[in-house]
Amino acid sequence: MKYCFGIDIGGTTVKCGLFSVEGLLIDKWEIPTDKSEQGKKILKDVAATVADKMREESICAEAVAGLGVGVPGPVLSQSVVKGCVNLGWAEYNVKEELERELEEALGKAVISVSVENDANVAALGELWQGTGKGNRSLVMVTLGTGVGGGIVVDGKILSGATGAAGEIGHMPVLYDEPELCNCGKKGCLEQIASATGIVRHAKRVLAGTDKVSVLRKDNLTAKDVFDAFKESDELAQIVINDVCGYLATALAHITCVVNPEVIVIGGGVSKAGQVLIDTVSKYYKEKAFNACKDTKIVLASLGNDAGIYGAAGLVLS
Amino acid sequence: MKYCFGIDIGGTTVKCGLFSVEGLLIDKWEIPTDKSEQGKKILKDVAATVADKMREESICAEAVAGLGVGVPGPVLSQSVVKGCVNLGWAEYNVKEELERELEEALGKAVISVSVENDANVAALGELWQGTGKGNRSLVMVTLGTGVGGGIVVDGKILSGATGAAGEIGHMPVLYDEPELCNCGKKGCLEQIASATGIVRHAKRVLAGTDKVSVLRKDNLTAKDVFDAFKESDELAQIVINDVCGYLATALAHITCVVNPEVIVIGGGVSKAGQVLIDTVSKYYKEKAFNACKDTKIVLASLGNDAGIYGAAGLVLS
Repeated sequence: MKYCFGIDIGGTTVKCGLFSVEGLLIDKWEIPTDKSEQGKKILKDVAATVADKMREESICAEAVAGLGVGVPGPVLSQSVVKGCVNLGWAEYNVKEELERELEEALGKAVISVSVENDANVAALGELWQGTGKGNRSLVMVTLGTGVGGGIVVDGKILSGATGAAGEIGHMPVLYDEPELCNCGKKGCLEQIASATGIVRHAKRVLAGTDKVSVLRKDNLTAKDVFDAFKESDELAQIVINDVCGYLATALAHITCVVNPEVIVIGGGVSKAGQVLIDTVSKYYKEKAFNACKDTKIVLASLGNDAGIYGAAGLVLS
Repeated sequence: MKYCFGIDIGGTTVKCGLFSVEGLLIDKWEIPTDKSEQGKKILKDVAATVADKMREESICAEAVAGLGVGVPGPVLSQSVVKGCVNLGWAEYNVKEELERELEEALGKAVISVSVENDANVAALGELWQGTGKGNRSLVMVTLGTGVGGGIVVDGKILSGATGAAGEIGHMPVLYDEPELCNCGKKGCLEQIASATGIVRHAKRVLAGTDKVSVLRKDNLTAKDVFDAFKESDELAQIVINDVCGYLATALAHITCVVNPEVIVIGGGVSKAGQVLIDTVSKYYKEKAFNACKDTKIVLASLGNDAGIYGAAGLVLS
């Protein structure tokens, strides 16, 4: 039997998965992300936990087809990370360094490492073993605290010249936005379609009227807005229709550019469920180019495991 | 010496090129496009002219690495055309049919045919031997009667699930557009950034004011508007700044999605020259995501030959 490892390095924990090369998740576990000393210990910890797991499962190095890693930053040529602020990393050859650490931990150099941006890796995960399974091209949109994205074409991640392909959260879709996005520009998709963007837009809509709404409460969340939308709250209708309209516009742009087989929507906001898909799809059909109107739009299915699946999938793509 | 042929099938003429596999254009010529009988004669004519050229230049079939064809319609898997209204074609396996016609014309079956959409092929041409040379990823924007586009990633054309990748003319960037685009939607990039779109927008701006302008003339063209812009005509400034602003917004969307090394702008409108690039670039830097701000934006260099270059480049990509 041949195995591969999928490692998803986040700011708080490192998620780890042991897979068969056919895509079966055999075991998953987490270790804390040690960000001390500019994150220098992280790869040593990854190598150690992988080596421990191999001993525990009696897997020899020759039976490991490879190890894939997702990191929260831009990556060039599946090896060099161009800085991960969350981890303390500046430019860093994660492939070379982790292969060296694995060699040290295992006493031999036979495990090849591939590295990619975490959003891209999640997209590959959904294509390999999630709702995108059976397709060759996919766009994944992650609606969380921010808006991330990943694109897979012909089974391979589209990384881009500077590792910025799929950064769809920063498409400038809001033309009259007065506030700054975290990226320093104004009018990014993320400013309306992320969890924080939905709340921000709801507060604006609420401030512009005296109408009664269940949204008039402290600590409003994106989930509250979707719940009120499902209950037909009038102001929540306005907010969610605006959010889904801009998201659909961005999707119509994206499909004109890469024309994927399927769009997968994940992230915390996607827990709103089928109502999100239905509302986005309604606006998408109005805005999309004819040849792209039938692009499937579906919910992601792997949740927080998309990263480890996709990282493992990197080994085989 | 090894050769390849690049064939660019248009609605009026078929442009033909004989190339060395290194990319040297050895000879180019044209034949008329015979659209009678739903375009059934076109591929027979192409096979005949290619066979004639091979006899004329004493090139044996074994010395031909392949033949690439650009067609004005969507193409799947570099073989099946999903309809070309301009040529009278419905769904049509151009690869199989042209290989059969070549076999008949030459008396043997050794020349392999690859087929792609003409805008995609022009993009590949600019990457192979035009201003995009030396890069691996490129987006080409063709500003003509309409707005077309082609995308090359890692040296290969991005075709899309239904052959619609790179159809950037139909990105919905005009939010309040009341008129219909040719595609049936409202608000497409093509409605403002094509030659006809520029004239349409100029007429709107002129109708909204009594100000003096050299644009108040019969048979206004996009060239007139750019000429007046260069002469600092006040209304032409408004028109061209609007056009370049929306074009830059579309480019900022595109670079967030595919993050290419270079954007090449061609087509009739690009004859306005460096002033077009400078104005688009100014707005692009305001709208682009940080990691994509330095994407090069340059004029195309192959003009009407981009199609034959790219078609020949198909053979080698």
